[in-house]
Amino acid sequence: MLSISKRGREMPASPIRKLTPFADMARKQGKFIFHLNIGQPDIETPKIALDAVKNNHLIILSYSPSDGFESYREKLARFYRERSNIPVETEDILITIGGSEALLFSIAAVCDEDHEVIIPEPFYANYNGFAHMIGAKVVPIDSKIDDNFALPPISEFEKKITDKTKAILICNPGNPTGYLYKKEEIEQLAELVKKHNLFLIADEVYREFTYDGLTHNSILKEKGIEQNAIMVDSVSKRFSMCGARIGCLVSKNQEVIATAMKFAQARLSPPTYEQIASEAALKVPDTYFEEVKEEYVERRNALIEALRTIPGLKVAEPQGAFYCIAELPVDDAENFSKWMLEHFQFHRETIMLAPASGFYSTPGSGKRQVRIAYVLKKQSLLRAVVILKKGLKAYQKQHGIDPESFT
Amino acid sequence: MLSISKRGREMPASPIRKLTPFADMARKQGKFIFHLNIGQPDIETPKIALDAVKNNHLIILSYSPSDGFESYREKLARFYRERSNIPVETEDILITIGGSEALLFSIAAVCDEDHEVIIPEPFYANYNGFAHMIGAKVVPIDSKIDDNFALPPISEFEKKITDKTKAILICNPGNPTGYLYKKEEIEQLAELVKKHNLFLIADEVYREFTYDGLTHNSILKEKGIEQNAIMVDSVSKRFSMCGARIGCLVSKNQEVIATAMKFAQARLSPPTYEQIASEAALKVPDTYFEEVKEEYVERRNALIEALRTIPGLKVAEPQGAFYCIAELPVDDAENFSKWMLEHFQFHRETIMLAPASGFYSTPGSGKRQVRIAYVLKKQSLLRAVVILKKGLKAYQKQHGIDPESFT
Repeated sequence: MLSISKRGREMPASPIRKLTPFADMARKQGKFIFHLNIGQPDIETPKIALDAVKNNHLIILSYSPSDGFESYREKLARFYRERSNIPVETEDILITIGGSEALLFSIAAVCDEDHEVIIPEPFYANYNGFAHMIGAKVVPIDSKIDDNFALPPISEFEKKITDKTKAILICNPGNPTGYLYKKEEIEQLAELVKKHNLFLIADEVYREFTYDGLTHNSILKEKGIEQNAIMVDSVSKRFSMCGARIGCLVSKNQEVIATAMKFAQARLSPPTYEQIASEAALKVPDTYFEEVKEEYVERRNALIEALRTIPGLKVAEPQGAFYCIAELPVDDAENFSKWMLEHFQFHRETIMLAPASGFYSTPGSGKRQVRIAYVLKKQSLLRAVVILKKGLKAYQKQHGIDPESFT
Repeated sequence: MLSISKRGREMPASPIRKLTPFADMARKQGKFIFHLNIGQPDIETPKIALDAVKNNHLIILSYSPSDGFESYREKLARFYRERSNIPVETEDILITIGGSEALLFSIAAVCDEDHEVIIPEPFYANYNGFAHMIGAKVVPIDSKIDDNFALPPISEFEKKITDKTKAILICNPGNPTGYLYKKEEIEQLAELVKKHNLFLIADEVYREFTYDGLTHNSILKEKGIEQNAIMVDSVSKRFSMCGARIGCLVSKNQEVIATAMKFAQARLSPPTYEQIASEAALKVPDTYFEEVKEEYVERRNALIEALRTIPGLKVAEPQGAFYCIAELPVDDAENFSKWMLEHFQFHRETIMLAPASGFYSTPGSGKRQVRIAYVLKKQSLLRAVVILKKGLKAYQKQHGIDPESFT
């Protein structure tokens, strides 16, 4: 029989985008939707990056090197050294098509079929997708909302390590949790991967987004795990350039870089215009990051404060990135999220949420949780929380849910 | 032990780019290199495409839809219908990051670990890479230089079909062969895949490049295999936009499209600027293709004629794309190609070839062959052949090879 692969049939749909058909329908019904589901910032892309593309003089849009323009890799290495004190050289960097491809290459470089990657959950849903696509397995370790999703005890990792374990993957600061790993937590992980000869892959695409005076601890600054550490990065969030699809894989392990380079050569090269934009974006002054950070802190504070006025809702306090996980006073957050698009409106407005169950790989986990991205202006966020509050009340009433039972 | 995956270790290096370090060295020695190794056309990208990017008004470079901009997909469907009489609709098209990604998604959508894809060899080397990356196996069928690399007899395919076979993959017109499949050959393949319930994947990125008054036969025009057919396409060659990394996967099989969409959602979206350029490029008049075609025909004729003056060299006559396979009067074409970069120069000039063994998956096959891309101006091609001739003579002399033994 003509049939799709098991790989294809079982490929998880993106929890961030899977409700899109319902949103399309809502829009067709004339509803305005506040998108809390997707990490698409409304911050303007630095003009210097946009202008570099508008003023380009290309006559032939030709292939670039498979590992990206050397001039870009050089400047990027300098950016890491000077801005974040991360000791890397040009040859440690391979430019990828988004952080997505860097993740795919990282997992493919270290995992064969049935090899395992341990990831604290909830985690960025597409880790599941990339691992699934190449036949590797995600082994989740539960982190807790009551703990703000801090690193689970190392003993929990030890319990899950088998001879199939090849890597530990973290996102720091976390998407969807907003949790920023402490120095001690990174040190514990470093010790663990050294002890068990594992790779440590860190998705650090939100590195610049750390709040409350806290600083980011890159795995590349950790001494003694130079050969274990693979860092994944992207311009998407840093410069509000999600459509660029420019990321990179950074490692001192030259075997990892050489292997990723073979994968990169197969797909030929990253897109040209967006490399031009990304290279130009490196020139933004430090004040750019300070202003962006201030904006996000204000949004976060307003959002969390407003969410906490909703009876029965529990929310973890994020200290980085621009997401938070909220546990809703409903039986099933995915049903509720669909219902908000299909059946609810408040003055012709509604909200779109990302059901958090897709950020867990343990079946049934996170069923009452949603991820909220605070990438909209403060006034829009506050309005969205009002709609959420009204929606919850109406949903509870319609579904015979006692809000008291969640408090 | 901290170790790279078997997948990574065994990932084949690109035969097109693997000699790059030797070319870099040759350049540092002050040599000028004629690049016959890579299909990077020197034709200018249509101005209308370049201008669309220069005149864009984006303020936030945000994600596009995972399957690409709807306006682009709509216009592309119209382009296929009107220009090539290929009956497709918007919903049959998923925009990918280059033809490369469309190939990866196609293979991943139909193959699980150890499933097999039958491909006439020599074939575009990266098919190997994509299959390898996801654990599928390439099963080659030998096509012959003396036959201009026509489709091998269907009986040869029948012999290779097992219960693990999931698809047949062809490139039409062929890279690296330049062979343009006849209508009867496509019909034979259609019958075969229907009989055995296989997918037929066709890489048709060179569709516009057909010569000698011949027309292209798309698998999407073949009646009765609508559910089997998956077409892979790209703007890279058509519009001389290799750096765009915009391609697409086209199929009437909605399960294939839905599966590819899940893969696409995991990597979020194709690059934005290049979609703008690709959409604008569709507006080029038919005369653009005619002019480009004329140019390539002239180059092909000049190249083939010149190559045939080299004693002992055998070359297949291409009728499409812009490559040919030449069998050289040497023992090992890869050694020779390296040697041309490392040790040879003629008035400070040399050439870079793509050893063809990487386009075969049968070990030892194509050892004396190279792929030559005729993407340079006629004068450069003729000059390159002079250098090749001189180089062959010098190499034969130095290595004690009798040129007579090949004639």
